[in-house]
Amino acid sequence: MRVGVLTGGGDCPGLNAVIRAIVRKGVQEYDYEFVGFRDGWRGPLENATVRLDIPAVRGILPRGGTILGSSRTNPLNARDGIRRVEATLAEREIGALIVIGGEDTLGVAARLADEHGVHVVGVPKTIDNDLSATDYTFGFDTAVNIATEAIDRLHTTAESHMRVLVVEVMGRHAGWIALHSGLAGGANVILIPEQRFDIEQVCTWVTSRFRASYAPIVVVAEGAVPGDGDMVLKDGTLDSFGHVRLSGVGEWLAKEIEKRTGKEARTTVLGHVQRGGTPSAFDRWLATRFGLHAIDCVRDGDFGTMVALRGTDIVRVPLAEATARLKTVDPGLYEEVGVFFG
Amino acid sequence: MRVGVLTGGGDCPGLNAVIRAIVRKGVQEYDYEFVGFRDGWRGPLENATVRLDIPAVRGILPRGGTILGSSRTNPLNARDGIRRVEATLAEREIGALIVIGGEDTLGVAARLADEHGVHVVGVPKTIDNDLSATDYTFGFDTAVNIATEAIDRLHTTAESHMRVLVVEVMGRHAGWIALHSGLAGGANVILIPEQRFDIEQVCTWVTSRFRASYAPIVVVAEGAVPGDGDMVLKDGTLDSFGHVRLSGVGEWLAKEIEKRTGKEARTTVLGHVQRGGTPSAFDRWLATRFGLHAIDCVRDGDFGTMVALRGTDIVRVPLAEATARLKTVDPGLYEEVGVFFG
Amino acid sequence: MRVGVLTGGGDCPGLNAVIRAIVRKGVQEYDYEFVGFRDGWRGPLENATVRLDIPAVRGILPRGGTILGSSRTNPLNARDGIRRVEATLAEREIGALIVIGGEDTLGVAARLADEHGVHVVGVPKTIDNDLSATDYTFGFDTAVNIATEAIDRLHTTAESHMRVLVVEVMGRHAGWIALHSGLAGGANVILIPEQRFDIEQVCTWVTSRFRASYAPIVVVAEGAVPGDGDMVLKDGTLDSFGHVRLSGVGEWLAKEIEKRTGKEARTTVLGHVQRGGTPSAFDRWLATRFGLHAIDCVRDGDFGTMVALRGTDIVRVPLAEATARLKTVDPGLYEEVGVFFG
Amino acid sequence: MRVGVLTGGGDCPGLNAVIRAIVRKGVQEYDYEFVGFRDGWRGPLENATVRLDIPAVRGILPRGGTILGSSRTNPLNARDGIRRVEATLAEREIGALIVIGGEDTLGVAARLADEHGVHVVGVPKTIDNDLSATDYTFGFDTAVNIATEAIDRLHTTAESHMRVLVVEVMGRHAGWIALHSGLAGGANVILIPEQRFDIEQVCTWVTSRFRASYAPIVVVAEGAVPGDGDMVLKDGTLDSFGHVRLSGVGEWLAKEIEKRTGKEARTTVLGHVQRGGTPSAFDRWLATRFGLHAIDCVRDGDFGTMVALRGTDIVRVPLAEATARLKTVDPGLYEEVGVFFG
Repeated sequence: MRVGVLTGGGDCPGLNAVIRAIVRKGVQEYDYEFVGFRDGWRGPLENATVRLDIPAVRGILPRGGTILGSSRTNPLNARDGIRRVEATLAEREIGALIVIGGEDTLGVAARLADEHGVHVVGVPKTIDNDLSATDYTFGFDTAVNIATEAIDRLHTTAESHMRVLVVEVMGRHAGWIALHSGLAGGANVILIPEQRFDIEQVCTWVTSRFRASYAPIVVVAEGAVPGDGDMVLKDGTLDSFGHVRLSGVGEWLAKEIEKRTGKEARTTVLGHVQRGGTPSAFDRWLATRFGLHAIDCVRDGDFGTMVALRGTDIVRVPLAEATARLKTVDPGLYEEVGVFFG
Repeated sequence: MRVGVLTGGGDCPGLNAVIRAIVRKGVQEYDYEFVGFRDGWRGPLENATVRLDIPAVRGILPRGGTILGSSRTNPLNARDGIRRVEATLAEREIGALIVIGGEDTLGVAARLADEHGVHVVGVPKTIDNDLSATDYTFGFDTAVNIATEAIDRLHTTAESHMRVLVVEVMGRHAGWIALHSGLAGGANVILIPEQRFDIEQVCTWVTSRFRASYAPIVVVAEGAVPGDGDMVLKDGTLDSFGHVRLSGVGEWLAKEIEKRTGKEARTTVLGHVQRGGTPSAFDRWLATRFGLHAIDCVRDGDFGTMVALRGTDIVRVPLAEATARLKTVDPGLYEEVGVFFG
Repeated sequence: MRVGVLTGGGDCPGLNAVIRAIVRKGVQEYDYEFVGFRDGWRGPLENATVRLDIPAVRGILPRGGTILGSSRTNPLNARDGIRRVEATLAEREIGALIVIGGEDTLGVAARLADEHGVHVVGVPKTIDNDLSATDYTFGFDTAVNIATEAIDRLHTTAESHMRVLVVEVMGRHAGWIALHSGLAGGANVILIPEQRFDIEQVCTWVTSRFRASYAPIVVVAEGAVPGDGDMVLKDGTLDSFGHVRLSGVGEWLAKEIEKRTGKEARTTVLGHVQRGGTPSAFDRWLATRFGLHAIDCVRDGDFGTMVALRGTDIVRVPLAEATARLKTVDPGLYEEVGVFFG
Repeated sequence: MRVGVLTGGGDCPGLNAVIRAIVRKGVQEYDYEFVGFRDGWRGPLENATVRLDIPAVRGILPRGGTILGSSRTNPLNARDGIRRVEATLAEREIGALIVIGGEDTLGVAARLADEHGVHVVGVPKTIDNDLSATDYTFGFDTAVNIATEAIDRLHTTAESHMRVLVVEVMGRHAGWIALHSGLAGGANVILIPEQRFDIEQVCTWVTSRFRASYAPIVVVAEGAVPGDGDMVLKDGTLDSFGHVRLSGVGEWLAKEIEKRTGKEARTTVLGHVQRGGTPSAFDRWLATRFGLHAIDCVRDGDFGTMVALRGTDIVRVPLAEATARLKTVDPGLYEEVGVFFG
C-alpha cells in the first residue's frame, strides 16, 4: 500500500512529530510506502512530492515546522482542482491520504472523501485550539508556554516601574491562547474575541491595579475588539486599527489606556514567535499519538475519519465533525477566570 | 466562614497556584477567612499556622514549592493524632478544610471526613500522575518537560559520539514520567516499573541502534527492575543495586550495558530537579482551576469530595476514590509506544 | 559604618544580584549596616528608605527587577535637589553611598562626589551595553539570550512559509543587542542605529534570500533609521513612523518590504520582555562580582570610583569615565558580521 | 586554496557555529574550497572526509555537536600516524588545516606545525574553560547556564523540605563550571578540584544553613576530592568512590553528609546534559567570531597560531601557548566567592 501525507495551513509545532509517527509505524509495522506531498494541497494539485521514508523522518521530532512544507492552496479554488488532485493520486497509486490541517485543509479532505470516495484520514491541526471535535490540538500548548514565559518576564518590570504592559497574542476568532497564557501568567486583564471589551472597564481594572501599587499586565488576543464601534471611528484611529496587522489591537489599547488613565503603556507583539521552535513535551506526545492512530485508521480501512483527543484517549470521529463548529471560549469559563482581573 | 488549607507530601510545581486561587476567590467572592496550616498534617496536629490572605498569595503563581511548607507527618501515626487535629480545628473555628496532597495525605482527609465528620475538600497532587480519579495531576507536565529537555540535550552527544546515554527519571511505582518524556524526547528504550525489563533485550535495542550509526538513549524510571532477580544476585552487583538511592537503577543499567555490549555508557540522574522550579503553563492552568473549584465545593457545602480533571472539565469525585487505585501505565499504551524502541 | 544603596534608571536583570552581594559581604565581613533608598534618587531626595539586611536579600539572586525600586528622578532637576540629598545622607548618617545605574544616574553620583565630596561608589548598569568603561554590563547577556531565542523560533516559520519576518529589539542609540542576537540567531539582515540603512539594500538581501528558497529574518534595533529622510516623508508614512513607539521601525520596515518586494512580512516587537525575568548565569556572575568589589571599594575608602569588567577581571575606574563616552558598535565589527547578510 | 577542517575531543556547544563561520567567510569572501575531516584526527589519519560547503553548513548554527563528528584518536599513538596524516593532506591538496579542539587535539596540531611545517590554525575548545591562553572558550557559558538552571530548580525543594541537595557538575581538573554555576545558582557550598575539601567543614556549612531554616545546596565538581585520603579508605567506601564514574563524588558526599549530620541528602548528576543542546547566545557569538578570525589567519598565511578571546577582542596567539598551562581556579577567586558559603 502506498500512503500519501500532506500538511496544510499555518505551521504549528508538532507537525513533524505527526509525520514521523505515521512513517515509523507505517513502515515498521505495516510495511507501507509513503509519498510526501509538498506544500499542502499544492502537492497533489501540481504533482509535487518529497521522499518520505525512515531516514527522512530521523531527528525531526523536536523540530517545529513541517518537512513537507505547507501552503493555503485550495484545490476548490483552482480550475479543475479536484480532478487534478484525483489524477495525481491515481498516477502515484495512492491508496490512502493522510491530511494534517485545520478547518480549510480538512474541509477539502472531507469533500474529497464524501463526493469522490478518496480514502482520507484527517489529523486536526490548529494552534488556536478552536476545533470542537477534540479536547486539544498540538501546537497550542507550545504557544501558551511561550506567551506565558513572556508575561512572566513582564512581571519584573511591572514590579519595578509604574507602567501598563500590553501583550498581544494570537487568536483571531478564539481566545484560548489569551485565556490560558493570561491565566497562567497572572495577567490582570484578559481580552478575547468572543466578548467585545469595554475600554472603560479595562481602564478601571488598570487603575485599581495601580492602587495596589503594582503595574497591570493586559493580555489581548489579536482578534479582540472594543464594544463600541463608533468610538473607534470618532477617535480617528480607524486607519491604523482598520489595518489590524500594521498597528494591531495591542498598540491601539496601549494608546487608549495612556490617553484615558495618564499612565505610560508599553506593548509586546509576539507574532510568529508563538508558533515556532521546538514543541513542548505535551505537544510531542499528542502529535505522536495522533500520528500512530492515523496510520492505524489506514490499516483498518477506516476512512473519512479524523483522530481526536478525548480525555487521555485518542478516538476517531467523522471528518465532517472537524469543521462543523468552531470551539470558542465559553462565557462561563471566561467568567470563572475573571476573579483574577483588576 | 473560616477555611483551613494545608499541603502534604513531596513538593510539586503548582501547589502555590492552587493556594492562590483558593484564597483569591474565597476572599473576593465569598468573603471567607483563611488559616494556613504549616507543613501538611503537622500544622493541625501541632496547631502551627501561617497567615493566609490576599497579600500572602501575591506573586506566588509562578513559584514552585508551597508557601505553607510540607511534610509527611501522619496524624494516624501520632499519639492521639486525630483527636489533636480535631482540637485544633475546633479551637481555630475552622468550618472547612481544603487538603492538597497525594495518596497518604488524602487518605487521612478521607478518614477525617468519614469517621469524624470533618468538612474536608481534597485536591489531588502527585508529580507521578498516578491517581486514577483524574486525567492529570499538576506538576506532572512540568516534570515531563524538564526530563524531555534533558533528553533533547543528550541527542547532541548521541549524534557526535558513540556512547550509550542512560537517563534516570522519577517514578517509583508508575512509569508515566519515563513514558511521556521518553516518547517526547525520542528515546530508543523506555523502562518502567510496570513491566520488568529484560537486560538482554535492552542490549539488543542498544546494539541495533548503533548499527544505524546513532548512539542510543535509554530512559529508565527509578522504580524499574530487571526481570530476572537471580541474575542480579549472581552478578555480584546486588550491593549497589540493593541500595537503590546510592547507586540506582540508572548506574546499574549503564554498567550492565557496558559489560554486555562493550560500548561506553554514561548516566544522568535528574533527581529533585524534576520537581522544582516554575510550573509549566499547563500545570498553572490546572492547579488554578483545581483551586477555584475546591473553594466552590466549600461554598456548596459539598464535603468529602475531591476535584478532578476529566477531559477539559473540572469535576467532583468522592474523596475515597482518590486513593482507591493507583493509575499505572496500561500494557497496551506501553506497546503502542514500543514502535519507537531500538 | 552605614552604607546607602540605590538603583536608578530602567530595570535590568542582575540588579538584585548586585544588592545581595553588597549586603552579604558588607554585613558578614565588614560588619556594615545598610540603608536602602527607594526608587533611585527619589529615595535620598525624599528621605524614602527600605530595610536592607541579610533577610531582605534572601532569595533575590535569581529575580529580575530591583527590590529597592527604581525611577528616573534626577535631583539636579528638583528644587534644592542636591541640598536635600545631602540633608538625607547626613540625617541617616550615611558614610558611603553605592549608586547602581546608567549614564544619568551615575552622572548625578559623579557630581555629588566631585562637587560635594559625597563618598560615592558606582556600579554600571545598562541593558544596552553602551558604556565604554566596561567590557560588558549585566542584563545585556540576558536580553541577548531572550532575543536570540525569539529569532530561533522564527526560523521554524521561515523554513515552512515564504514570509519575511521582522524582529524589533531594544537599542535606541547602540545596536549591541541587535548585533549580538542577530548574529547568534542567524539573521539575514541586522540594522543598527549606528549606520543609517538603505531600504533598497535591505530589499535586495531579502530577495536574494528568497532565491535560496528560504525566508529572510530581519533584526532591527528600535533606534535604527533609514538613510534617506525625504523618502520617508514623501512616502506618507511619516505619521506612523514619527510616532515611533506606536508603530515603530519594525512595522515600518515590514510595510516597506511588502510594498517593494511583494512578499508578505510579519513583525515581532519584543519590548519589555527583553529586560525582565531571571538573569542569565553570566549576568548573575558579573552582577555579583560587581557587588563584591563595590563594597571592597567602600572598605578601602576608594570613593569617586566605579567598578568595571576588563577581560575576566573586575577593575576600578574613575566614576567620570562611566559617562564620558557612549560605546557604540564599531564599523569594523559591523562589517565583520556582514558576511552573514543576505 | 583548499582548506581542511576537523573537530576533536569531547563535543561542545558551538562547534557547528565555528565551522559555519569558517565556511561562509571562506567561500564568500576568499573563494576557498573546504574538506571536512571526519571524527577529529581519525579523518586525516584514515583519509575519511565529509563534504563541506555552503549548503552543508546551512541551519547548523543553533545545533550542538559537530557535523564533522569527533573522536579522541591521536595520530601520535598510531603506527606511522604523522606520516599518514601528511600523506592525506598531500593527496587532498590541503593548503591549510583548521583544527578545533582542546589540549590533546591542539597538541598534535602544534607538533605538526613545528616539526612538519603543516599550515595549521587552531581554535580552542574546552567546555571546562581551562585553557590559559583565552579568557573564555565556547560551550562553557552553555554548560554553566544548564547547571545554574538545575540549581535554581533545586531551591524550590530546598525551601519546602529539609533535605540536603547535592549537584555534581563537570570539571575533572578545573572547577570553573562548579564555581560559576554554584555562584549564579546561590549554592551554599561549592567544591572544586583545585582545593581538597574537608568533609567536616562541609557538614558545618550544611548544619549552619539548616539553622537558618533553609535547606543547603552543595555543588561539587566531578573532580573534587576530600582532603584526607585515609578517611576514605577506612570508611570502607573506597570501592564505590574508587570507581568514580559509577558512583561518583556526588553520591559519596550525599552519603557522608547523611551519616555525619543525620539529614537526608539527595543527589543530581547532570552528566552529558551539560554539553548538549543548543549553544547560548554568548557561545554562538564567541564561536562564530573564532571561526571568522581563524579563516582570516589562513588568508594572512598566519600559521602555527590559535585564535583567542581577550576582553572583547579576538586575538592570535602561538599555538604552543594553548597547551602550555592549564587555567585553574585562582585561590583568591575561590575565597572571594566563599562569602556565600554556609
